[in-house]
Amino acid sequence: MTTNTATLRSRHLLGIADLEPDQIELILETAVAMKEVGTRPIKKVPTLRGRTVVNLFFEASTRTRLSFELAEKRLSADTLGITTAGSSVTKGETLADTARTLEAMAPDMIVIRHASSGAPHMLARTSRASIINAGDGMHEHPTQALLDALTIREHKGRLAGLRVAIIGDLFHSRVLRSNALLLTRMGVHVRACAPATLMPLGLDRLGVTTTCSIDAALDGADVVMMLRVQHERMQGLFLPSMREYFVQFGLTRARIERAAPDAIVMHPGPMNRGVEIDSEVADGPWSVILDQVANGIAVRMAVLYLLAGGEGGND
Amino acid sequence: MTTNTATLRSRHLLGIADLEPDQIELILETAVAMKEVGTRPIKKVPTLRGRTVVNLFFEASTRTRLSFELAEKRLSADTLGITTAGSSVTKGETLADTARTLEAMAPDMIVIRHASSGAPHMLARTSRASIINAGDGMHEHPTQALLDALTIREHKGRLAGLRVAIIGDLFHSRVLRSNALLLTRMGVHVRACAPATLMPLGLDRLGVTTTCSIDAALDGADVVMMLRVQHERMQGLFLPSMREYFVQFGLTRARIERAAPDAIVMHPGPMNRGVEIDSEVADGPWSVILDQVANGIAVRMAVLYLLAGGEGGND
Amino acid sequence: MTTNTATLRSRHLLGIADLEPDQIELILETAVAMKEVGTRPIKKVPTLRGRTVVNLFFEASTRTRLSFELAEKRLSADTLGITTAGSSVTKGETLADTARTLEAMAPDMIVIRHASSGAPHMLARTSRASIINAGDGMHEHPTQALLDALTIREHKGRLAGLRVAIIGDLFHSRVLRSNALLLTRMGVHVRACAPATLMPLGLDRLGVTTTCSIDAALDGADVVMMLRVQHERMQGLFLPSMREYFVQFGLTRARIERAAPDAIVMHPGPMNRGVEIDSEVADGPWSVILDQVANGIAVRMAVLYLLAGGEGGND
Repeated sequence: MTTNTATLRSRHLLGIADLEPDQIELILETAVAMKEVGTRPIKKVPTLRGRTVVNLFFEASTRTRLSFELAEKRLSADTLGITTAGSSVTKGETLADTARTLEAMAPDMIVIRHASSGAPHMLARTSRASIINAGDGMHEHPTQALLDALTIREHKGRLAGLRVAIIGDLFHSRVLRSNALLLTRMGVHVRACAPATLMPLGLDRLGVTTTCSIDAALDGADVVMMLRVQHERMQGLFLPSMREYFVQFGLTRARIERAAPDAIVMHPGPMNRGVEIDSEVADGPWSVILDQVANGIAVRMAVLYLLAGGEGGND
Repeated sequence: MTTNTATLRSRHLLGIADLEPDQIELILETAVAMKEVGTRPIKKVPTLRGRTVVNLFFEASTRTRLSFELAEKRLSADTLGITTAGSSVTKGETLADTARTLEAMAPDMIVIRHASSGAPHMLARTSRASIINAGDGMHEHPTQALLDALTIREHKGRLAGLRVAIIGDLFHSRVLRSNALLLTRMGVHVRACAPATLMPLGLDRLGVTTTCSIDAALDGADVVMMLRVQHERMQGLFLPSMREYFVQFGLTRARIERAAPDAIVMHPGPMNRGVEIDSEVADGPWSVILDQVANGIAVRMAVLYLLAGGEGGND
Repeated sequence: MTTNTATLRSRHLLGIADLEPDQIELILETAVAMKEVGTRPIKKVPTLRGRTVVNLFFEASTRTRLSFELAEKRLSADTLGITTAGSSVTKGETLADTARTLEAMAPDMIVIRHASSGAPHMLARTSRASIINAGDGMHEHPTQALLDALTIREHKGRLAGLRVAIIGDLFHSRVLRSNALLLTRMGVHVRACAPATLMPLGLDRLGVTTTCSIDAALDGADVVMMLRVQHERMQGLFLPSMREYFVQFGLTRARIERAAPDAIVMHPGPMNRGVEIDSEVADGPWSVILDQVANGIAVRMAVLYLLAGGEGGND
């Protein structure tokens, strides 16, 4: 169906929007191979020895930053970190100047998380380094969608034909966007569910079915993907209260019964227990949430590995 | 008297409370061997090559964090750091979920400092990684007690039979607790001295003599261990003023004369000069404070080394 | 003219004030050799393998910290970082005690940036480690002056006899001070230009010509070095407004025409576009600002390399 090439066609990973199905397949298959490294006593291969990766995190993050850093170290790269606190950003430098300065230091790869949609693309326009988008504003978070796809495939054996419900704060979610792009292009039926105030426009153009009823979204679903309610972006505008959210949109044991008998439950983390998900579900037999974490490292190793090898590719 | 085994019986170092005298001896003897590495031009051995250590510091710390990180790097481990600022903790994730997430990333060891007593034990219950307690609330700080014991033994040639005075803010001190546990079980006579408002209950059950008179505590002591007045935990509740504290409990040259002629003075740092200790003493011939710092790296290397080798042990 | 030795005569790099012309030459020539490493696919040499470098940054910095860390990693050193946030400094420890504690941990080198002039010198008095000044208060920033000199020499083929204009906030500038010291002792004619409120006393003793007219400063200059207006140190005391500053002292295309036809424009970064420099100039053909960034890594590699080799030298 798809023809796999030995390398990625771009030097950068900016979003799922740029990836054809064969490229997605290539990353997932490479990630499967990378998982094996994580089972060794010495979890390390010399692939990126002597290469420098700068992790540029302009937004708070533990899990994604740590996952990338572990992936980089397992590939023997030298890693450097910049976070907002204590950076030139506080001295009023523009992102464009920060980008040019970094470029002059000649790192091999830059992993960037930024509150502004499109920040990684701006870097990519001028940089000789490979740019990896680790989340940009409300736009994309491609490695999250890739690790989600890897997790689904591990548990379901395939992607095409599955019914995936994505439920929660769709409006602020780059995770939704990247997942919707990836899953629809791999032949998955995606249903998106949110309160009306958190439902973005234009999801139908992505080939996604939308509903404000969690029961309708769950009905017969093979995969239930819960999104985090982002308190820090809400500011009381979108939701009356966390308690009411849980009553209407929280995933409980009673509700999960509507999904397929062998349905799996996913969450990108960090979870708000008692808000978007009940502990009984989060810790229950449906949950593959910790598999997602483990697969995150494998997928990021795969992306780093493929981008490093793809330096001679046509961009 | 004690029979040394070749390895630690636990996969974790959660507190001195779990260590029998033979295990304490084993760590101290290993630390002596590790000190030799620190005298080489290339201060590095390949013991932990390819192993990953996560340093999880939920409380501000320079000296302990740096000491662990140096120890890890001298053993060639890959190190990753998480501090409270910029972590998922600010997004409302529970410690239990942070622990599970870390676990899914499969680090080999986790060094944790946390404001809540028992946080490392919670991690240890579910983790395949070895957990090292770098200070939990007002509970324990085992590597501090071990480095203190190493320092005493270096200067006194033994532990058993010595008279050790521990003076200062006993109430908030995990250093007191770990030291009292270690020293009493190694046959040391421990006297604890604090203002009445900072004297915890139950010290006698640990086999420790208590007094509110610094003169009584110092009388003939072989070792004087001063504790830091923790401004940040005081909030005006326990002490009238820092000046009055110094008058009543500060270690001055006049006071140190009451101790044994060859007494040594210790402090876990950072010191408040002119509060709990006078500069004349801190910088005088009694002071072994900088030996404590150097021994901290050796003790932490020993713990990391032994826990790494003890993976197959019965926990 | 100068006789190069094979090593630096000091174990430390505290300021340009301590460097004779032959020592400056040695660093610049070593930096040229180090630039070659930066062009390799594997940008790494084993020079400092097993050596530990502590980066002690008490002031916010991205570019300098990152540049040092990259230099250290390209030389295969183990690096550790301390920043003000989360350090013992917040617990009231004195710099002297922090220095002694660090010393007891036996790092091989300490790179220090501090708001107090003379902080690196204080460290150097007691430390067995080599101390590198990465900026101390309003005093010196020697690696900045060295990278500036390397950049000028690359573009002009020499230093002696050139006319260099240094323009901007001279009062708060350690960059000015280090550059004035270095350039005058290499035979450069230095003109310093600032508003009267930002003109320090005593520049004439350094052999520098001063003026409050930017047109006079620029007239026939071979090199134009713009300094950053340091908002964070101004507090409304020295300048009426940023807009007025730009009108009187901002470097525009019209103004640069007064300089020599082949003049180059430099800036230590981060730039305030529209305050001290117009974007048309910053991004124009005169600008060698990104060369400065690249040369920063090479110069810092050279300094680290020479100080490591100079351990047996007479200090």
